[in-house]
Amino acid sequence: MNYKTILEEIYKSVQPFAAKGKVADYIPELAKVNPDRFGICLNAIDGAVYSVGDSNERFSVQSISKVFTLAMALSVKGESLWARVGKEPSGTAFNSLVQLEVERGIPRNPFINAGAMVVADILLTSFDNPAERLLDFVRALCGSSDIRYNEQVARSERETAYLNAAIANLLKYHKNIECGVEEVLRLYLLACSLEMSCRELAKAFMAFANHREEFRYAGIELTRSQIKRMNAVMQTCGFYDEAGEFSYLVGLPGKSGVGGGIAAICPMRYSVAVWSPRLNSKGNSVMGMKALEELTTMTNESIF
Amino acid sequence: MNYKTILEEIYKSVQPFAAKGKVADYIPELAKVNPDRFGICLNAIDGAVYSVGDSNERFSVQSISKVFTLAMALSVKGESLWARVGKEPSGTAFNSLVQLEVERGIPRNPFINAGAMVVADILLTSFDNPAERLLDFVRALCGSSDIRYNEQVARSERETAYLNAAIANLLKYHKNIECGVEEVLRLYLLACSLEMSCRELAKAFMAFANHREEFRYAGIELTRSQIKRMNAVMQTCGFYDEAGEFSYLVGLPGKSGVGGGIAAICPMRYSVAVWSPRLNSKGNSVMGMKALEELTTMTNESIF
Amino acid sequence: MNYKTILEEIYKSVQPFAAKGKVADYIPELAKVNPDRFGICLNAIDGAVYSVGDSNERFSVQSISKVFTLAMALSVKGESLWARVGKEPSGTAFNSLVQLEVERGIPRNPFINAGAMVVADILLTSFDNPAERLLDFVRALCGSSDIRYNEQVARSERETAYLNAAIANLLKYHKNIECGVEEVLRLYLLACSLEMSCRELAKAFMAFANHREEFRYAGIELTRSQIKRMNAVMQTCGFYDEAGEFSYLVGLPGKSGVGGGIAAICPMRYSVAVWSPRLNSKGNSVMGMKALEELTTMTNESIF
Amino acid sequence: MNYKTILEEIYKSVQPFAAKGKVADYIPELAKVNPDRFGICLNAIDGAVYSVGDSNERFSVQSISKVFTLAMALSVKGESLWARVGKEPSGTAFNSLVQLEVERGIPRNPFINAGAMVVADILLTSFDNPAERLLDFVRALCGSSDIRYNEQVARSERETAYLNAAIANLLKYHKNIECGVEEVLRLYLLACSLEMSCRELAKAFMAFANHREEFRYAGIELTRSQIKRMNAVMQTCGFYDEAGEFSYLVGLPGKSGVGGGIAAICPMRYSVAVWSPRLNSKGNSVMGMKALEELTTMTNESIF
Repeated sequence: MNYKTILEEIYKSVQPFAAKGKVADYIPELAKVNPDRFGICLNAIDGAVYSVGDSNERFSVQSISKVFTLAMALSVKGESLWARVGKEPSGTAFNSLVQLEVERGIPRNPFINAGAMVVADILLTSFDNPAERLLDFVRALCGSSDIRYNEQVARSERETAYLNAAIANLLKYHKNIECGVEEVLRLYLLACSLEMSCRELAKAFMAFANHREEFRYAGIELTRSQIKRMNAVMQTCGFYDEAGEFSYLVGLPGKSGVGGGIAAICPMRYSVAVWSPRLNSKGNSVMGMKALEELTTMTNESIF
Repeated sequence: MNYKTILEEIYKSVQPFAAKGKVADYIPELAKVNPDRFGICLNAIDGAVYSVGDSNERFSVQSISKVFTLAMALSVKGESLWARVGKEPSGTAFNSLVQLEVERGIPRNPFINAGAMVVADILLTSFDNPAERLLDFVRALCGSSDIRYNEQVARSERETAYLNAAIANLLKYHKNIECGVEEVLRLYLLACSLEMSCRELAKAFMAFANHREEFRYAGIELTRSQIKRMNAVMQTCGFYDEAGEFSYLVGLPGKSGVGGGIAAICPMRYSVAVWSPRLNSKGNSVMGMKALEELTTMTNESIF
Repeated sequence: MNYKTILEEIYKSVQPFAAKGKVADYIPELAKVNPDRFGICLNAIDGAVYSVGDSNERFSVQSISKVFTLAMALSVKGESLWARVGKEPSGTAFNSLVQLEVERGIPRNPFINAGAMVVADILLTSFDNPAERLLDFVRALCGSSDIRYNEQVARSERETAYLNAAIANLLKYHKNIECGVEEVLRLYLLACSLEMSCRELAKAFMAFANHREEFRYAGIELTRSQIKRMNAVMQTCGFYDEAGEFSYLVGLPGKSGVGGGIAAICPMRYSVAVWSPRLNSKGNSVMGMKALEELTTMTNESIF
Repeated sequence: MNYKTILEEIYKSVQPFAAKGKVADYIPELAKVNPDRFGICLNAIDGAVYSVGDSNERFSVQSISKVFTLAMALSVKGESLWARVGKEPSGTAFNSLVQLEVERGIPRNPFINAGAMVVADILLTSFDNPAERLLDFVRALCGSSDIRYNEQVARSERETAYLNAAIANLLKYHKNIECGVEEVLRLYLLACSLEMSCRELAKAFMAFANHREEFRYAGIELTRSQIKRMNAVMQTCGFYDEAGEFSYLVGLPGKSGVGGGIAAICPMRYSVAVWSPRLNSKGNSVMGMKALEELTTMTNESIF
């Protein structure tokens, strides 16, 4: 079977899961998304692009943006980055304050909220206009010059971001953020408000799938080893406290977001992005996970 | 021995501990206090007042104020108060976020910071001008009309209160504070900035020691049973995670503060306040604890 | 009202709670007790004894025995005892392994199971025949020469004591027990299997209530200060994770057991023992707690 | 560079780490191993075998055996296995009781001690003579008919296995082991006492690397999908709380043991086993980890 046929098969096989799960509704902007949307787009290493469903519709990428901000921080700080944030799976809920307190302000990894805030702090101290630079970087990665933040989403998040504010204050207390708490929260939430389509996400993630290609986008550069290591972090930490389950069922490095998107890669083979807003109890897209499980089963292409 | 002689003996016997411990220095206003101050004042049930040392010098009462705010909240809410805050000892460090997260936003007791913030929130929704009312109440309790907040201390606290801000945000996240996070923090920190002398504290706490007297001060009323129950909470929760140690060595209900003050009572016998700024590793005054241990040993008057 | 009338009033007032709660049923011997039993016995400081209900019927004292073993260990080791066990309230469930692991094998207090096992280990290394000595001590305390262990209960406990075995092994791992794991478990469970009546418990606890009397029973001696300190530990740690609630509602030092018994004291006034097998969710007797709450309310005699 | 040259290069490049770390010494049998041993053996997918150093010397495989027992349990129970043990990384130290207690007796994954005990319990209820069957299975996997347990090691472990005994008792308490505590401990420790050489381990792990080959050894069968899923579990959970670090630096599924061995695979490319007894603070072989990091760097062959 070729990728085209496979995507079409997947589209059919995930239909029984279409009504399972629940759209994120902690802010009105996320709650009002059409829960029945489903899109998937795969970029093969040879440049071919395959897609099915609502693959051109943009959605809130949310935590998937943490991959982009980590890439920027890693390009600037190199290995010294890991003095301020770990790279171990979190083992517990993605926003747990417990772990942060026990480990005295060093977040377990850059993909839990606390870790992404430390990354945001690094961007704030490393770039003149980090929000602008992140936009340039993402636009270059996916080749779409009109990628934008959704300022309304970011503002709405801030109004109810009590748990995130607790985390940011705790990081500040432990002196693991240098900038002001509000400034860090603002950049963190702004990054999460990025809107992209499956097509754009798949294109952007090809930069991580094809590590033989030079990684240089809008001035952000990573070595081949760094790309692989980003994949390693995605693999062990990319799916909240369902990293083991995703690894077991799917077997691809990737990152999910509460907007219902998942972007994943099979190194030197393909990148893939899927979107369906209904989430399971762990905050991952139900149909998205199912679609990727089918993908690696049908293609027999996973990292294992 | 009478109380006068006993206080003089205590004064001598605590001298070997004069240089032990460390003044709280997390804000400049607390750090600049003279670490060598020591005062103690005892009010007997018969109205007699005994004191030694710097018992007329005012200092930052800090967490001792939590007794006053709890009394106000209890007078307004009665037993329904305990739906929003527990009355069990905390078992761990006094500002632990872990417990709060595990118990979904219900602080273990009203004397840990989280609990006192919930109490502050209750005052904000119960009184038109809670800061003013608290001042009236404390002034009435101790009979000094010029008790004041130290606004500079409160401001200084707010600037560095990252851990407290984390706690307040977590409470808000769990919907256990109704008012704004900043508003709650402001009242909480303002209450902590109250300045009183040992003489004034001892007088104020007599209202809790003499439960046969009517408790009605500036419009705040407690029943006899409520006074006793306040004492019970002080007994089990008043000394951070050293409640057991204090109970074991001293055996009096009371409350300490990082300003170095401790106020305690022996029901129907006496109230006592002691002040010495150097703290042990648990945040309690070294000489203060020693002095009270001597007091109950010499008088043979404790609750046990 | 005199104590006699008060006990009769209490008997009536606790009837509405007669069917509330659930008998401990983790071993058959405890499960088969008649759940409707209720007895109470009060010893006044003047020597008078008052009782109502099934106050002469013996029951399994279970954790109340921890007071007796602690007294023996304290008489032998003095203050050095506290290097191996804390005296802070536990803050969490009474058999939590978490705390023990976090605090590297030092139990929070001698009344949680882990702490009582350390105490049992101390008895094993301090006495030739500790089980015999404990029996002598308790017999002397209550003046009944036929107090016995229920070997069948102890054996039955051992068969299902997986959690206690986990705790004992963890203590051994942290080198806080010197003897063999099985030996410690056996003495610990044997002590818990002691059978006493309310009348015998009240008499035994008078030794802790009347600290002006010399404490010397079957060769076990405590100083006046040690008696008071035992009371302090009962006060802060005697009711599992309901210590604060008991202090708040009742206001007496004491100790409860899953057999449904509670023994408590009002220093220099009275000792009291109550028994009713139905337990609340925290493992304390429902009617027992209610009865003691009524007692301190009616007598207006508590430690506060 | 071919594998031969690469192994020789690795041998040189790890020499600076030769004296780093500390041999496991909790039992005398492990403590007396020569700390300066170093061996590595790589099996290529084409059948070629490359080795350097002490690759034929047998050592205690310890936790590496958990891969073999998991394979047996998975072949018998299939997906239903995961009702009794999770597959998420542990996030904390490999023998933590905390997690087990919080998650009510369901170990996070089959490679922490608790999880491997549940697996041992499954083997006990599934096979007539599980110890014999495990031996048959491992012998078939590596083609050495004289693989043996070291009974002396197993006995010695049992004498000091207080923490493991605590874990087993806690599992029994939560009813997640059916057999007796001692029986489970015995099989668990016996499996850990297996002795194999790097050459034998590399051969055995080729069965997991080459998932196009039929997996059928001494009656134990796995499907292709099951092999891949075993690899996924090794990837996320195989290195105690250093899974993220290993994934980041090395990028291969694998399993380490406190005997100093590590076995890892690059699916459809090679299997590799390395041995050096000195461990880092997380319990993984210092030179072993370094050697594998060099291997994936030099070959540019990892799963990412």
